[in-house]
Amino acid sequence: MASRVASAALKARVHRPSMLNKLCQPEDLLHHFPNGSYIGWSGFTGVGYPKKIPVFLADHVEKNNLQGQLKYSLFVGASSGAETENRWAALDMIERRSPHQVGKDIAKGINEGRINFFDKHLSMFPVDLVYGYYTKDKPSGKLDVAVVEASEIKEDGSIVPGASVGATPELIQMADKIIIEVNTSLPSFDGLHDITMTDLPPRRKPYLITQVEDRIGTNSIPIDPEKVVGIVESDYQDQTSPNAPADEGSQQIASHLIEFFEHEVKHGRLPKNLLPLQSGIGNIANAVIGGLDNSNFHNLKVWTEVIQDTFLDLFDSGRLDFATATSVRFSPDGFKRFYKNWESYKDKLLLRSQQVSNSPEIIRRLGVIGMNTPVEVDIYAHANSTCVMGSRMLNDGPHGVSCIVPMCTHIDQTEHDLDIVVTEVGLADVRGLAPRERARVIIDKCAHDVYKPILKAYFEKAEFECLRKGMGHEPHLLFNSFDMHKALVEEGSMRKVQPW
Amino acid sequence: MASRVASAALKARVHRPSMLNKLCQPEDLLHHFPNGSYIGWSGFTGVGYPKKIPVFLADHVEKNNLQGQLKYSLFVGASSGAETENRWAALDMIERRSPHQVGKDIAKGINEGRINFFDKHLSMFPVDLVYGYYTKDKPSGKLDVAVVEASEIKEDGSIVPGASVGATPELIQMADKIIIEVNTSLPSFDGLHDITMTDLPPRRKPYLITQVEDRIGTNSIPIDPEKVVGIVESDYQDQTSPNAPADEGSQQIASHLIEFFEHEVKHGRLPKNLLPLQSGIGNIANAVIGGLDNSNFHNLKVWTEVIQDTFLDLFDSGRLDFATATSVRFSPDGFKRFYKNWESYKDKLLLRSQQVSNSPEIIRRLGVIGMNTPVEVDIYAHANSTCVMGSRMLNDGPHGVSCIVPMCTHIDQTEHDLDIVVTEVGLADVRGLAPRERARVIIDKCAHDVYKPILKAYFEKAEFECLRKGMGHEPHLLFNSFDMHKALVEEGSMRKVQPW
Repeated sequence: MASRVASAALKARVHRPSMLNKLCQPEDLLHHFPNGSYIGWSGFTGVGYPKKIPVFLADHVEKNNLQGQLKYSLFVGASSGAETENRWAALDMIERRSPHQVGKDIAKGINEGRINFFDKHLSMFPVDLVYGYYTKDKPSGKLDVAVVEASEIKEDGSIVPGASVGATPELIQMADKIIIEVNTSLPSFDGLHDITMTDLPPRRKPYLITQVEDRIGTNSIPIDPEKVVGIVESDYQDQTSPNAPADEGSQQIASHLIEFFEHEVKHGRLPKNLLPLQSGIGNIANAVIGGLDNSNFHNLKVWTEVIQDTFLDLFDSGRLDFATATSVRFSPDGFKRFYKNWESYKDKLLLRSQQVSNSPEIIRRLGVIGMNTPVEVDIYAHANSTCVMGSRMLNDGPHGVSCIVPMCTHIDQTEHDLDIVVTEVGLADVRGLAPRERARVIIDKCAHDVYKPILKAYFEKAEFECLRKGMGHEPHLLFNSFDMHKALVEEGSMRKVQPW
Repeated sequence: MASRVASAALKARVHRPSMLNKLCQPEDLLHHFPNGSYIGWSGFTGVGYPKKIPVFLADHVEKNNLQGQLKYSLFVGASSGAETENRWAALDMIERRSPHQVGKDIAKGINEGRINFFDKHLSMFPVDLVYGYYTKDKPSGKLDVAVVEASEIKEDGSIVPGASVGATPELIQMADKIIIEVNTSLPSFDGLHDITMTDLPPRRKPYLITQVEDRIGTNSIPIDPEKVVGIVESDYQDQTSPNAPADEGSQQIASHLIEFFEHEVKHGRLPKNLLPLQSGIGNIANAVIGGLDNSNFHNLKVWTEVIQDTFLDLFDSGRLDFATATSVRFSPDGFKRFYKNWESYKDKLLLRSQQVSNSPEIIRRLGVIGMNTPVEVDIYAHANSTCVMGSRMLNDGPHGVSCIVPMCTHIDQTEHDLDIVVTEVGLADVRGLAPRERARVIIDKCAHDVYKPILKAYFEKAEFECLRKGMGHEPHLLFNSFDMHKALVEEGSMRKVQPW
């Protein structure tokens, strides 16, 4: 069977002969995936995910009409490729999913109650996995199988990931069996990673990182070779989509932010080259980073989750000295550019596990400037990043302009977390402000002109009523706090809210 | 003037002669406190706070009818003594206050809108202070004066705090002038502290603590002696109140928790002596720690914010090996016992700054078991720890039994943070559960029998409606989510809610 014989391309990537003996085709591995299995995949934000096995299993279900009969608990650091997890969702192959997802069909499955999805801090997910919290109902306490993409296998059996690290180290630690997809259509990413594994307390150690570029780990993920039940050659690249060009709103947000940075530098609260930037993901984040390319800042550094296309511009213009993240998620054109100019980027980039990239320990030590793009922010500076109208899990579609509301319908970041709120209208600096002061400045600086009087009316009525009752710390008309959302549902627009 | 001559008691505590030259009475220092000053006090949870200067200033305002004419921005690590900050609030002397408070009059001032209070993560407050966020509107960018209690002044001018560290190191770092109250009615606490100061990024370093008992700092807080404008002898102890005896509800909560710990140990997810305990403050926290004294656990360690009376029982019974916190806040009897048996406790205790005791870096590394006592928890495991009915800042009165509600009216800890919910009724383990699964287990295990059918009715209606609309990830009847609170306001009881 020629297909079980290693290609030259594969041989060039697998430096441990015993691994080549485990070469097989996806169909040889079907028996490792009985219904009800707990499965881990490599991958983060749609890159570095396994391709051949998930697609084979989806084909298998589809061809044999097994929808709903092969269902899995699926753990991936964050989102995977649409042709894998989203197709699995469409074929009703996902029983449980954590901690993050992207895709229309998977969001649909979650919102229709077919997929038990839970959302967890991305930095906590891997360690909670190792604590055994997610496998506590399994007698083994382990994941059944981890399917991970590698761009190279070293002589000691350790694997060099591709475009993301994510939770792969911990998924491998926690798996009874491991399947490796060696992707020969990518260059080897050897040298681009800084890998750390997870010890549990009381044996956890400090992350000795004091600069964005510090290396504290190894180049590859150690593997117990006896756990490897098969390796498969993978022959196509990460399926990403193009970025939308920066729209006017995003550009305005970027320009407000840059003005704020300049103001803080002038007053000595930020160094001239800022502090490490963390920029979230998506088109607004991409535009903010793009905006920095038209600023006067130099010697920038980035400590973030995901590196997107506009970072390449910042590298090319010489403004960005170093960037580290848990994934490089470029557009198809961005990947071409990245691979073509590999030599000029490779020493300025480092990929780490999501436990490290998102570590509160390191983020606070480095003083990272964290920027996120929520669904809505309320007048007291709480933010909703996950649940539209309190209930509906987001998918990856653009969710429109961020909105200032009286009270968030779901809260992911609290008033104790936010320093700055910025919209296309302007920037509110709420540092050191009491809630009622915050409300005034957020409405004044950030709300759209149409909503300014509406929000002001809410706040003033709430303030009057609550102060009168001696409960005015953070005034709300509690039983009317979602009236703007109600008007949106019932009348099609928040503008149509009945005055308070 | 005899009163400006150092007493023998004071001389025994002040080992730097030049400091004794600065000895004065509070009235000599009045000119350092013009209206509008930014003031820092030592203190945390009602211990280690300055006494003579605050009481003198309050007397001064009262005697001269200056209410509302001497108002200050007051920054203290957490709460201070009632005879100081609460009296200041009653005399309308507080313009702004952060990040935590306790006292009827101060809560009243906040809820009536006279005091601009903002609540910040206690671990972030000191570093944000050093960043200059809270003094950015002052030309100096500094606090005007810090008034700090010491139990000893060393030869190099550094001070040994009393029963708390809190934010004192950073308040001192940020102050233009320093006043030291040397409290001779306390024993010297020399040796009981581990002091670290705050560097800003990019110069922050890792906290190299891997065990509860690790020391990484100095015994005392360094001071620039030229900033010291006066020292005052203080002659009375921290004014704390007795603890309420553990009630049945608290004991039930403790017993559910201990059962859970035993279960986790049995399944290998916790070591035999558990992981370091963090227990919050108040009577429930006190009871939980008390409950451990009747358990089978030994060699316990504590990494917490505040050490309360029941920890002394745990020490005495030999179950507790080491405890570290940012304050020891005992009852009057507890302090007597502590001072009397100083020798037996002193090597098992360490007080650190609140930036360290509450550091996410160290808490996550050590795997601290964090226990907190919120006002209300909702069916999806969000918790409200600050704002009753969404608006009213808590004071320190007992706020009754914690309550399970459909949606929290204010959120301080999100669903992404909570693993376990426990009430007097029982314990819900929500690790790895999707929101709808969480709701079922929280209602079933934690809600009181009276509210179980009510909450179930809410959830089932919400689930039905939201699944029908394809938005069932975290089902809510958004516009009726606070109906139980409404029934409480309008009918006097949440039981009287209209069925959904």
